[in-house]
Amino acid sequence: MKFHILTLFPDMVDTCLQTSILGRAADNGCISFHTVNIRDYTLDKHKKVDDYTYGGGAGMVMQAQPVYDAWKSVQKDGERIRTVYVTPQGRTFTQEIAREMAGEEELIFLCGHYEGVDERVLEETVTDYISIGDYVLTGGELPAMVMVDAIARLVPGVLHNAESAQTESFQNGLLEYPQYSRPFCWNGKEVPEVLVSGDHKKIEKWRQEQSMARTKERRPDLYEKYISENTCICK
Amino acid sequence: MKFHILTLFPDMVDTCLQTSILGRAADNGCISFHTVNIRDYTLDKHKKVDDYTYGGGAGMVMQAQPVYDAWKSVQKDGERIRTVYVTPQGRTFTQEIAREMAGEEELIFLCGHYEGVDERVLEETVTDYISIGDYVLTGGELPAMVMVDAIARLVPGVLHNAESAQTESFQNGLLEYPQYSRPFCWNGKEVPEVLVSGDHKKIEKWRQEQSMARTKERRPDLYEKYISENTCICK
Repeated sequence: MKFHILTLFPDMVDTCLQTSILGRAADNGCISFHTVNIRDYTLDKHKKVDDYTYGGGAGMVMQAQPVYDAWKSVQKDGERIRTVYVTPQGRTFTQEIAREMAGEEELIFLCGHYEGVDERVLEETVTDYISIGDYVLTGGELPAMVMVDAIARLVPGVLHNAESAQTESFQNGLLEYPQYSRPFCWNGKEVPEVLVSGDHKKIEKWRQEQSMARTKERRPDLYEKYISENTCICK
Repeated sequence: MKFHILTLFPDMVDTCLQTSILGRAADNGCISFHTVNIRDYTLDKHKKVDDYTYGGGAGMVMQAQPVYDAWKSVQKDGERIRTVYVTPQGRTFTQEIAREMAGEEELIFLCGHYEGVDERVLEETVTDYISIGDYVLTGGELPAMVMVDAIARLVPGVLHNAESAQTESFQNGLLEYPQYSRPFCWNGKEVPEVLVSGDHKKIEKWRQEQSMARTKERRPDLYEKYISENTCICK
């Protein structure tokens, strides 16, 4: 799977994507990253990519031409690569969207900066307007990398242990149970007895109860949804 | 305002935070970043920081000792710095939480990796369990940087134009209106006539209508909330 990232901060994106699990996966060839510097495509002689907003207001708007030409440089003849614009003005990213997008062969992420991007070029290029949450950031790079990370880890071969992608939070609609590692006693606190009992049924039951209790306490919205979907209507 | 980030990937965090608007703000002294490599604090002779999970299961868990000692290294005598653990098992980050946290003098972000962090050290150190959204990531670094970005941009002096932080998305509960920049005609598309009319009242009205229409279409949840909060009950 190939990820194209259109940005004004290619160094930041490259360093982040080359590090950690994603970098290892790219080295293995499971996924690949292609960062495009939007500034390389401006026709302005001062390399400018932004200008004032029509109608007045604070901040600068990224202009249509450099964004469009950067986008066109990664499009193939004939087929249109799905293009995500990272914006608070989009639908909210979820694990479901991550799973769905992990089925694409290529994806383009357009990272905005300043006050936004000229609406006309968005209309021409963007297929998906997506937000990672209800908060405001200084630019689109971090949220684009968040989405790339969530999608890439679902691509076969990216995570070493195939199980890891499946047993984690949200995959079954509940938050994860608490985890413990060695030593058995740390700072006066022991690992819960059941986890060293060797009784796998009991361990599974305890973990399920912990997940339920934690979800109920911290995310009542998810808990309600889980209960309504898993309640058996029978006498 | 000082941000401490406890991580196993200090290079990734440093590069991201030194770039772009946050890096400029750090150079100006408005904010400062302090990255702590958790691995520097392990007492294990092989520099190991993780181990298998008690009770069985895929993946490794970060051990209590190195995390605790890294955390203790940034705590001051007598007072406890607010400590955020970045986890899908937390309440969801919002602009409201960003605003509230921007009032702190210092914040610690603990970035987990692998399957998670030993529950006992979380109980000892964490004051806030926060998630950036309902999706799963390979580690806590990207979401921690997302939160740092959202909080830091609200610190006075970080954004050049004080207005920018106030007029943006979510600050008034609606999505932002479309933006246009030069040229007036691009790719056969002209800027909406009203924006070059010079009539500020008309421009404001048009923008408000665009914000409402866009919010209704893309985020009906926000639209309902806005309407119910802004409906005047009078004859």
